[in-house]
Amino acid sequence: MPPRTSPNRARAAWSAVAVATLALGSFSFALPASAATITENGGAARLDHDEDRNEAIREALVDGPAKNVILLIGDGMGDSEITVARNYAEGAGGTFAGIDTLPLTGQYVHWAVNPDGTPNYASESASTASAWSTGTKTVNGRLSVDVDNTPQATLLELAKANGMKTGNVSTSEIQDATPGAEVAHISARGCYGPVQTTANCTSEALQNGGLGSISEQLLNVRPDVTLGGGSASFTQTAQAGPWEGETLFAQAEDRGYQLVDDAESLGAVTEASAEQPLLGLFTEGNFPVRWNGPAAVDLTAGGTLPPAAACTENPARLETGLSLASLTTKAIDLLDNEDGFFLQVEGASIDKQDHAANACGQIGETVDLDEAVQVALEFAKEQGDTMVVVTADHAHTSQIVGSAIPGLNTHLLTSEGQPMIVGYGTSAAGGSQQHTGSQVRIAGYGPGASNVIGLTDQTDLFFTSANALELERDLQSLSADATISAPAEVAPGAEFTVTVSGLDADWQALGSFGTDTDLGQVDVIDGTAVFTVTAPEDLGDYTVTITGAQTDVELSAEVTVAANPAPVPTSSPSPSVAPAGTDGSGSGSNGALAVTGATAPWALAGIAGTMLAIGAYAVYRRRRGIA
Amino acid sequence: MPPRTSPNRARAAWSAVAVATLALGSFSFALPASAATITENGGAARLDHDEDRNEAIREALVDGPAKNVILLIGDGMGDSEITVARNYAEGAGGTFAGIDTLPLTGQYVHWAVNPDGTPNYASESASTASAWSTGTKTVNGRLSVDVDNTPQATLLELAKANGMKTGNVSTSEIQDATPGAEVAHISARGCYGPVQTTANCTSEALQNGGLGSISEQLLNVRPDVTLGGGSASFTQTAQAGPWEGETLFAQAEDRGYQLVDDAESLGAVTEASAEQPLLGLFTEGNFPVRWNGPAAVDLTAGGTLPPAAACTENPARLETGLSLASLTTKAIDLLDNEDGFFLQVEGASIDKQDHAANACGQIGETVDLDEAVQVALEFAKEQGDTMVVVTADHAHTSQIVGSAIPGLNTHLLTSEGQPMIVGYGTSAAGGSQQHTGSQVRIAGYGPGASNVIGLTDQTDLFFTSANALELERDLQSLSADATISAPAEVAPGAEFTVTVSGLDADWQALGSFGTDTDLGQVDVIDGTAVFTVTAPEDLGDYTVTITGAQTDVELSAEVTVAANPAPVPTSSPSPSVAPAGTDGSGSGSNGALAVTGATAPWALAGIAGTMLAIGAYAVYRRRRGIA
Repeated sequence: MPPRTSPNRARAAWSAVAVATLALGSFSFALPASAATITENGGAARLDHDEDRNEAIREALVDGPAKNVILLIGDGMGDSEITVARNYAEGAGGTFAGIDTLPLTGQYVHWAVNPDGTPNYASESASTASAWSTGTKTVNGRLSVDVDNTPQATLLELAKANGMKTGNVSTSEIQDATPGAEVAHISARGCYGPVQTTANCTSEALQNGGLGSISEQLLNVRPDVTLGGGSASFTQTAQAGPWEGETLFAQAEDRGYQLVDDAESLGAVTEASAEQPLLGLFTEGNFPVRWNGPAAVDLTAGGTLPPAAACTENPARLETGLSLASLTTKAIDLLDNEDGFFLQVEGASIDKQDHAANACGQIGETVDLDEAVQVALEFAKEQGDTMVVVTADHAHTSQIVGSAIPGLNTHLLTSEGQPMIVGYGTSAAGGSQQHTGSQVRIAGYGPGASNVIGLTDQTDLFFTSANALELERDLQSLSADATISAPAEVAPGAEFTVTVSGLDADWQALGSFGTDTDLGQVDVIDGTAVFTVTAPEDLGDYTVTITGAQTDVELSAEVTVAANPAPVPTSSPSPSVAPAGTDGSGSGSNGALAVTGATAPWALAGIAGTMLAIGAYAVYRRRRGIA
Repeated sequence: MPPRTSPNRARAAWSAVAVATLALGSFSFALPASAATITENGGAARLDHDEDRNEAIREALVDGPAKNVILLIGDGMGDSEITVARNYAEGAGGTFAGIDTLPLTGQYVHWAVNPDGTPNYASESASTASAWSTGTKTVNGRLSVDVDNTPQATLLELAKANGMKTGNVSTSEIQDATPGAEVAHISARGCYGPVQTTANCTSEALQNGGLGSISEQLLNVRPDVTLGGGSASFTQTAQAGPWEGETLFAQAEDRGYQLVDDAESLGAVTEASAEQPLLGLFTEGNFPVRWNGPAAVDLTAGGTLPPAAACTENPARLETGLSLASLTTKAIDLLDNEDGFFLQVEGASIDKQDHAANACGQIGETVDLDEAVQVALEFAKEQGDTMVVVTADHAHTSQIVGSAIPGLNTHLLTSEGQPMIVGYGTSAAGGSQQHTGSQVRIAGYGPGASNVIGLTDQTDLFFTSANALELERDLQSLSADATISAPAEVAPGAEFTVTVSGLDADWQALGSFGTDTDLGQVDVIDGTAVFTVTAPEDLGDYTVTITGAQTDVELSAEVTVAANPAPVPTSSPSPSVAPAGTDGSGSGSNGALAVTGATAPWALAGIAGTMLAIGAYAVYRRRRGIA
């Protein structure tokens, strides 16, 4: 048995809380006065024998809105996987202190769609993660684009555009389907970096006017906190755009990211923001699993089940001691702020180890997720304003059976000393065990969480989360009241700044000056983009135009290059920006400066492509040190 | 496609309700004004996009007590089986009008125990049905006895003892595990009749002082309504006891049962009571399944999946047109009364067809159960005082996969025209596919139903149901205030009656007169047992003793055989019986007659055995015609 951190471990699995004789109304129930055993009447019950939960459930129905939302996803964690893990780690009568204790529960379905728009009953992690991230069903393998490959706004993006902090945590490569769906829009989940994107997502490569690889899109979105594996892809080199020829790591640093790669450097981080986002990549690929165990035995052609054996700690697990719980703790510490946050946490390798028919692997990852759920619930209970949802993206293969199956079998000796056979029968030995299409458990806590009760669709979780946070989902409207600030007159050759504020739903802005000067791309930080411009030598009237890269909102101002320009204020009046969560109708334009605002369909237009098309003239990069 | 009765069939599976632009607080959501398709944003959502379910859930939390409880069990209906059936019959985005619409949902675990008292992660229908029927975990294969084979009172028995009407409906043989667990206490679920019991349940055979076969125990309990299959066992002959040498059918008739075997005779029944219980046995074995379909193809050694095919109506299904829904309707009609009822309804062959890897079989049975759930919900919604719970006894094998498994595969063409692969991989072709140990869905409606939310144990359902009905669970106490009525003096050779009232928790009573006269066994009807006695010729003082067969409550009176006896009242004063649901403390004993009451541990002592031990002298049978 590996060391366990679950706080309810001390409770013997087959003893229940002693309940003395109780009086309820006119009835007396003679219950065991001493601790019941599981063989006694009521000895295995999880509720008090006379419990009526109406009042407890009423108390769990908290009216919204929620200030924060934490989604915890057990990848491939169907009801069977939960039960396998509970039986092993806590005993059949035991309780996961996190996963099992959320007060509101239901089931949801997670089917995908085919390219022709018909339902596909067998989904995978990309289509399913896209479903709750965007509210739109898509085709297997795609991330947050619809059946026509049109990008769909994600919960993380919407939360950010509404002025909240955002986080994305996983034990997988951070480009993997579940974390990737919150930050990227792409037709093939495997296009982690420029190399794979050039090869397999041609039209989405930067050099072809696309949005770029998953890693590059992640860097564009700038979530406040991103923690996981997958550093290998960041050693790839951009094929186009402002950082062409540089590694993604260099690009990240250049764009202000705080980069960490172990527990010590993570521990030193005290703040994370859109200006200085935290990007922690702790492994080249996925995290090593926490537990190993007996390999599954192929009994397709008959044979004998080996003796039951226990799981063991994986010597290759992160030596730093990082766990999903510790990453979740750090993320919450960094994200907690007065404007609220959205955080997604994934226990990724329940799925991966189920694919590999590694029962101990999948169990250890479930325990790992459970600890993270405990962290989230502890925070939520202290705050009272945080919705926590725990669910899976899809069901998976592993089944608890009474005798060996004609396929792969693992014979485990559980923590309560009993044998358990876990069968894997959806692929032959050596193949990848398949996802399964069963509806899965969804459980919630806090404001808005009652929407998980009953039967819902995976896409409902998008609306449940967005509604709990009262997110405005019309991205264009969030950037529509942006204002532009530029000096009315400048001297020839003078350097001046053009500032756009209120581009809340844009992550980058593109600028042009006059008819032939490309001002390049700058990152939009908290709605603000600042362009530094050198005035031409030719006197005359010029139009400076700034466009939000995600919303296509366009702003322009007239700038006159004059021999004797009127004095420019040392600081441009800062246009008021609508507070997050309101419609911004009160924000006035700055009358002293030329301002226009226009709304266009949300575009996520290819930034690099646009730049290439108009001929790159100058690229202004935001360079700053790491705090 | 077989004909469908589900009322929501008309809704196209991949269209959702049109939602026009909605205003919520200060936000406007631009939703499609025309019917959304599943590929649109929110098009697959099951909730309104701005829905907050707190109020709906609060309304679903109905305070108790409940007047009636209806438990509907889908045998083997795990989440995977529900999803398989929904995808096929309603479409992936469709909704079962019964199963899917209960407002309160959760998960429960259903492990069993081993004979040594340790947990067993792989349960079956007998141990699981015993768990919710009695609140006590037991060993696989046993019915409503504990790990020591001690009988445990069931919900049906407790409801009856508390003065409620009771019903037991199944599409299986009525002796099968799920219905059997409510009425029988036996160490091996296969002991349907005297033949199997003599062979395999030796100590429980009547001739060995046991409680008898499942069928004989059913006849003893006298539920008001019993409907199902399994008539074959009733053609067996009792091996001992009052009806030795007679068939169980003859015994049933002799004991006042109304026997029906088809829809017409069932339709003619207008009343069912403990005095004239209804026993409807419509098939010799299990009901034929409603749907057939393509046989599963064994691809263990490779091969090609056949083209997708649809299910077809089973020509062998009940020609009478009986369905689980029609049986449920009839049962509710007959049971509904001012004192309330407990009804269990089982869709039995989801499990049996899953064992047989017959996807269409299991789907058709799920549809059959769904219709019964609709009937129950409709009644409950009209009444407002009825708890309805829908769940499974255990999970099962069938899995929805994306490509063929190396085992048995059925390739279905669903009602929405899409292919679905259902894999069966827990046993080789020709073997019985196994139960699986995954936690399963439990869903509820009405007073007390909030106890299904969250994670519970199968044994919690016993307490949830008993508490909802405010059942007194101490059977002895329900018979403890019984009274006996007998004449003080009788003439030699005179015939007189001895009446015991208030034996609410006994189904039979045993009597003796003096030291050597056995008065035999009579059925206790609504707490009352009447013995007809012929006085001996020898003058003197005699003690008449009546014992409740289930509770061992013993009552005695002194009767003097005198040459000139004092006049006997033409009718004995009837002792008042405690109303159901109160503690009966107000019931007075009849001072004019010798009365004693004693409580002993609940025994379910072998009636026949007791009789044989004291030497049967006379057997008084209640003979009456069928209404």
